[in-house]
Amino acid sequence: MASTTVETRVRYGETDQMGVAYHAHYLVWCELARTEHMRRLGVRYRDFEERGFKLAVSEASLRYSRSAHYDDLLQVTAWLAEVGSRLVVFEYTVERDGALLCTARTALVCLNRDNKPVRMPPDVLAIMESSTP
Amino acid sequence: MASTTVETRVRYGETDQMGVAYHAHYLVWCELARTEHMRRLGVRYRDFEERGFKLAVSEASLRYSRSAHYDDLLQVTAWLAEVGSRLVVFEYTVERDGALLCTARTALVCLNRDNKPVRMPPDVLAIMESSTP
Amino acid sequence: MASTTVETRVRYGETDQMGVAYHAHYLVWCELARTEHMRRLGVRYRDFEERGFKLAVSEASLRYSRSAHYDDLLQVTAWLAEVGSRLVVFEYTVERDGALLCTARTALVCLNRDNKPVRMPPDVLAIMESSTP
Amino acid sequence: MASTTVETRVRYGETDQMGVAYHAHYLVWCELARTEHMRRLGVRYRDFEERGFKLAVSEASLRYSRSAHYDDLLQVTAWLAEVGSRLVVFEYTVERDGALLCTARTALVCLNRDNKPVRMPPDVLAIMESSTP
Repeated sequence: MASTTVETRVRYGETDQMGVAYHAHYLVWCELARTEHMRRLGVRYRDFEERGFKLAVSEASLRYSRSAHYDDLLQVTAWLAEVGSRLVVFEYTVERDGALLCTARTALVCLNRDNKPVRMPPDVLAIMESSTP
Repeated sequence: MASTTVETRVRYGETDQMGVAYHAHYLVWCELARTEHMRRLGVRYRDFEERGFKLAVSEASLRYSRSAHYDDLLQVTAWLAEVGSRLVVFEYTVERDGALLCTARTALVCLNRDNKPVRMPPDVLAIMESSTP
Repeated sequence: MASTTVETRVRYGETDQMGVAYHAHYLVWCELARTEHMRRLGVRYRDFEERGFKLAVSEASLRYSRSAHYDDLLQVTAWLAEVGSRLVVFEYTVERDGALLCTARTALVCLNRDNKPVRMPPDVLAIMESSTP
Repeated sequence: MASTTVETRVRYGETDQMGVAYHAHYLVWCELARTEHMRRLGVRYRDFEERGFKLAVSEASLRYSRSAHYDDLLQVTAWLAEVGSRLVVFEYTVERDGALLCTARTALVCLNRDNKPVRMPPDVLAIMESSTP
């Protein structure tokens, strides 16, 4: 499973007075695709947190090329770009009917309940590694 | 101390494509004033949660009369309208230079760590009662 | 068509440190259902705005009974409760697998491009009236 | 005027169930500082839009090092890093009492009313150039 695509429709409250989707919301949409990609790989993030681990965003970058408008149906795709024992990198595209609106990349570190960086649990690490190019 | 007024400036991301502040954000602004009012009464909400209690919104109502625009400096006022051992009611106004934009009211229930409704701690209850008309 | 139900999954960014969905987001979810209900009736809100009209929320009230958690799949239902020439009232429920989390009600006024209250266009009014109990 | 610092307090709705501020909100806070920096330079963004120009974010990157918590008072600093006739780059730090939480950078392009990239108005360009290292 190279990547996962989810669809989301731009909400009214996600627009701003420029008449387009506000730039910060793309990070939220990327997370929707990341969560679904992990779920399809067999890692439900909700369970991951209940086991006492979290993935905290340590870096994010976005490149916006076209605007998204209210009520647009967007295709958001996520895939794993790099996996280490303590850090994973996801990449994303946000598209509308084949037109690229945005590319993005986030690095996430694995933390324990005390918010200390730790190695990911072996089963999760194995799944992620096997899905990374 | 009958009420507390805080100022907040409408953020770009709080506007929508109608060119005005999106209606859901008024609840956020009301919370800013509520938190400051409690802080001035001597109840820092952050400490309240650390003691194992929370105040969860159980009812909210808003009446919007004029729009708020990007970069507007708003005056948000909160006061206690009713206090019971398990439930408190705050009321609010959102104004811009004397013009009334919105009135609101929220009821909050006191919950413990297990999210069960409980009586408020006596010291907090006493403070709130003494500040209620 | 008495009502329309949409499904939405609670996003991570919609939770707060209480571990539940933040109360202001319910207004956003209600809007998702309202928009879809109008779309199914034949009134695409996007087109409505392009014709020079808007529906601005003038009153909102919410009653929260149970919390929504991260990743919960919610069913949000909207229906028309009252229709006048200048004002429409929608009501809502937010449920999770049959359990009621929240009921809500919003009144919306029809505005023209200059943000003046106006009568709704006759075709839209007729559609809405025919769908109201 | 090398840079401008604004203070903002982490709102309850800006936290997530990890108990820290959700990562997307840092972009909102950066904008608060950017807007104030421009205002102090003499360019009120609100007026800039009324003249028919906008600045749209074309790239954003953030590096998170420490978490922000509910009710934390943050210092957000913005400065101009690069200025061209059609594109400006701002850089940012988000700090809490001297501890660095995040560094960020956004590139913005100047658009006209039709969302076409255009040269910035000469007076604004001159102001920005004179404030850039």
